[in-house]
Amino acid sequence: MSEDFESAAAQAVARLTAHWAALESLALPVEPAHAPGATARALPASAPERGEPLERILADTWSVVVPGLVHWQHPAFLGYYPTANSPASVLAELVTAGLGVQGMMWSTSPAATELEQVVVDWLAKALGLPGSFLHSGGTGGGVIQDSASSAVLVAIVAALHRASGGGWRTDGVDGRYRAYCTGQANSCVPKAVRIAGLGEPVEIATTAGTGAMDPHALAARLDADRRAGLVPTVVVATSGTTATCAFDPLPAVADVCRRHGVWLHVDGAYAGSAALCPEHRAVNDGLEAADSYAVNAHKWMRTGTPCDVLWTSDRASLTEAMAIRPAFLHNPATESGAVVDFRDWQIPLGRPMRALKLWYVLRAHGLEGLRAAVRHDVGLAGRLARTIDREPGFHLVAHELGLVAFRYGTDGQTRALAARLAADTGLVCTPAEVEGRPLLRAVFGSPYATEATVDQVWAAIRRHAQAC
Amino acid sequence: MSEDFESAAAQAVARLTAHWAALESLALPVEPAHAPGATARALPASAPERGEPLERILADTWSVVVPGLVHWQHPAFLGYYPTANSPASVLAELVTAGLGVQGMMWSTSPAATELEQVVVDWLAKALGLPGSFLHSGGTGGGVIQDSASSAVLVAIVAALHRASGGGWRTDGVDGRYRAYCTGQANSCVPKAVRIAGLGEPVEIATTAGTGAMDPHALAARLDADRRAGLVPTVVVATSGTTATCAFDPLPAVADVCRRHGVWLHVDGAYAGSAALCPEHRAVNDGLEAADSYAVNAHKWMRTGTPCDVLWTSDRASLTEAMAIRPAFLHNPATESGAVVDFRDWQIPLGRPMRALKLWYVLRAHGLEGLRAAVRHDVGLAGRLARTIDREPGFHLVAHELGLVAFRYGTDGQTRALAARLAADTGLVCTPAEVEGRPLLRAVFGSPYATEATVDQVWAAIRRHAQAC
Ligand SMILES: Cc1ncc(COP(=O)(O)O)c(C=O)c1O
Ligand SMILES: Cc1ncc(COP(=O)(O)O)c(C=O)c1O
Repeated sequence: MSEDFESAAAQAVARLTAHWAALESLALPVEPAHAPGATARALPASAPERGEPLERILADTWSVVVPGLVHWQHPAFLGYYPTANSPASVLAELVTAGLGVQGMMWSTSPAATELEQVVVDWLAKALGLPGSFLHSGGTGGGVIQDSASSAVLVAIVAALHRASGGGWRTDGVDGRYRAYCTGQANSCVPKAVRIAGLGEPVEIATTAGTGAMDPHALAARLDADRRAGLVPTVVVATSGTTATCAFDPLPAVADVCRRHGVWLHVDGAYAGSAALCPEHRAVNDGLEAADSYAVNAHKWMRTGTPCDVLWTSDRASLTEAMAIRPAFLHNPATESGAVVDFRDWQIPLGRPMRALKLWYVLRAHGLEGLRAAVRHDVGLAGRLARTIDREPGFHLVAHELGLVAFRYGTDGQTRALAARLAADTGLVCTPAEVEGRPLLRAVFGSPYATEATVDQVWAAIRRHAQAC
Repeated sequence: MSEDFESAAAQAVARLTAHWAALESLALPVEPAHAPGATARALPASAPERGEPLERILADTWSVVVPGLVHWQHPAFLGYYPTANSPASVLAELVTAGLGVQGMMWSTSPAATELEQVVVDWLAKALGLPGSFLHSGGTGGGVIQDSASSAVLVAIVAALHRASGGGWRTDGVDGRYRAYCTGQANSCVPKAVRIAGLGEPVEIATTAGTGAMDPHALAARLDADRRAGLVPTVVVATSGTTATCAFDPLPAVADVCRRHGVWLHVDGAYAGSAALCPEHRAVNDGLEAADSYAVNAHKWMRTGTPCDVLWTSDRASLTEAMAIRPAFLHNPATESGAVVDFRDWQIPLGRPMRALKLWYVLRAHGLEGLRAAVRHDVGLAGRLARTIDREPGFHLVAHELGLVAFRYGTDGQTRALAARLAADTGLVCTPAEVEGRPLLRAVFGSPYATEATVDQVWAAIRRHAQAC
């Protein structure tokens, strides 16, 4: 089968590089005009009995699947937050898959675990994170998760373990434990709080007009809950909210958390990467007092999904909460206490070699290259923001890093514009809501976007607005 | 960067095929003799400022990382359960990474979602699963998860949602909800139960000597718990336990669950794949009455990790439990109700295009090819089992599918043999425990194992035993 693989892989590489060139030259639309069921109907109802050549499957990928994809790497993809890729990341996925190891414990592939410890430390240093988050720094360390969602769930579980003095493991939660965030926290936060058995999180008010947590409201609520016999367990603050890239005021929030002995998890899924650049280091302010912090390398660091890095300064609570040691996982290295077993830092038991991808990306781009990418995207956002700000009828709601959020005319007009943009296959922008009012957002992150992209996208937005 | 990528990818392919050939020809040991810290010390303390050529990173992968890996694809890797790979799977990972789309919702890549619906239906049919698990069948459907661990957590959450009449979402759990499994359930089951806030699961006894759940013990405990005012919520049964590939008696267990209205999740992580072969279809008996079922394609279906498939016959409970609909995820397709959004079937928000890999594997091998792989591994296990059974001093504890579990002499001697095998870098076997007694297990699954491998491995085991 290896020969078939060699020629198919060569074809795949050629097809991918052609695909990237087509994205770059705007030869492909960003979204398909796709009716529900179109792809499904193009596929047979059952798997073949006989094996088929890889080349045929590859050809079908381009004829059946690719036409039904939204191209997240396309220059005119300005939706959600980016999932920006790079050749280094793709190459690493190939090698990771080809080596096919499973790194649940140090002993099941020592190099996989040690490489991960090293690269998450590299990234922590590159971002200027507190030393307390380093494996080489004492009580902390980092781990690669699949998503910011999993990271916050792991953090909540660690917080419950600490708040319950360990009793959580045997007795579970009860109605007393509480988690806190604003209504602007990503949906993965309330979802994780629910999965952890806590029901809905307590919603802390934002300071009007900012989208950012009001630390006085947090303090008041923690005081009240404690007086009511509840157990404030974890506060999830966001550095760079999904709607407007707002920043919860970490130093003040951390202060409140410390006074109450509450675990502070900080979700820096998107904006955290900006700290690669000295001029954006302020996004880290207050992290010294956080118990855990997560950044999605798969958003703004040219690393394909999945790749979220979760750091904690309290490794003991996290791993004691998550540890499992059945007989079939016993091994001398674990028992010696000299090694890290990443199984105890995540929800799944098994895991691929997660670190190779981040290692390739950090080395291939170098920190200079990754900083240049951040600066490039920030520059494009600035160009769009300035244009919007000058344009009568448009209102610039937020402009932070690579994100621009805006309204057009009345709320009804903004909604109408959102609907028109959703129907236009030439660009992807996503709507959001702050304080009950709609807005549109555009975020730059495609490796192929240029100033010309900004101008084209703007022309399309303006044209649609005129019809609203 | 594309040119650099093309030549580096060609080199990576050549290195990988050479690596596979080295595994096949036993030119590499299965495990490294690796001192803790050896890989970490070979790496610099921080990421480079300047980008480096991909080819240099690739070369370092082979000089620094590969020597510290345990080769899960090696013929003499008989540990845990296999994570068997194939060229088709590796090719799919390359293409998936290269396309770089994110399939959290139908609207963020329609073809990614539809392909997944189709291939999990294909696999359900290939395994002969009940029609209630099909997307095309009514109230059910399947979804690709990263792991059996995540699958069981999702199932527990769906069960809590159903048992609480939805109140779980707002009010969380309390001390009344109970989850049940045997002590032979994989460690991921108690871990998921804890993460869901239920504390320790209730341990149901096994029928002596079988490693399988005693359905009478289950019935008695559910009755007692209900009388005590508790809420029996979910039973996790295992088809193919980790220690000895024991099968909880699904028809009887399902019967008890139905009487009590309790969610039945079946973990068929390893053994589920056997149902590809008509002669092993009995592993499915009783699944008609299960609410959810998970099989790791990444164990015994030539699909690299991660790739677990979770099916449910009660899609509504699962997705209502997991659904999130913030403004930034609103889109006409979701609102129409005509599409599936896999975001609501999993813990993370984002997800790569998960289905391409399974599609490539099912097509490239064909069902015939995958059945042949299962039969090959079962044959190798049979050869080892017969040899052990004939050998004085050895005791065959279990022989199911590709697994052989055995003891040597006294428990002390079995432990001594386990320790000697752990120190031998020429093979990987994992120890386990049933009813407090140690055993050793060997599972076949490497694509490169042959009868000669069995004989070599057996010679090594026998040699080590003589020293115990
Ligand atoms: C601020 C923030 N946090 C978390 C997430 C969820 O990320 P993931 O898909 O990795 O769980 C997002 C996704 O866009 C986000 O914007
Ligand atoms: C029976 C069984 N269930 C679940 C698992 C956990 O699988 P995963 O690593 O996919 O979570 C295993 C792992 O070996 C297993 O043997």
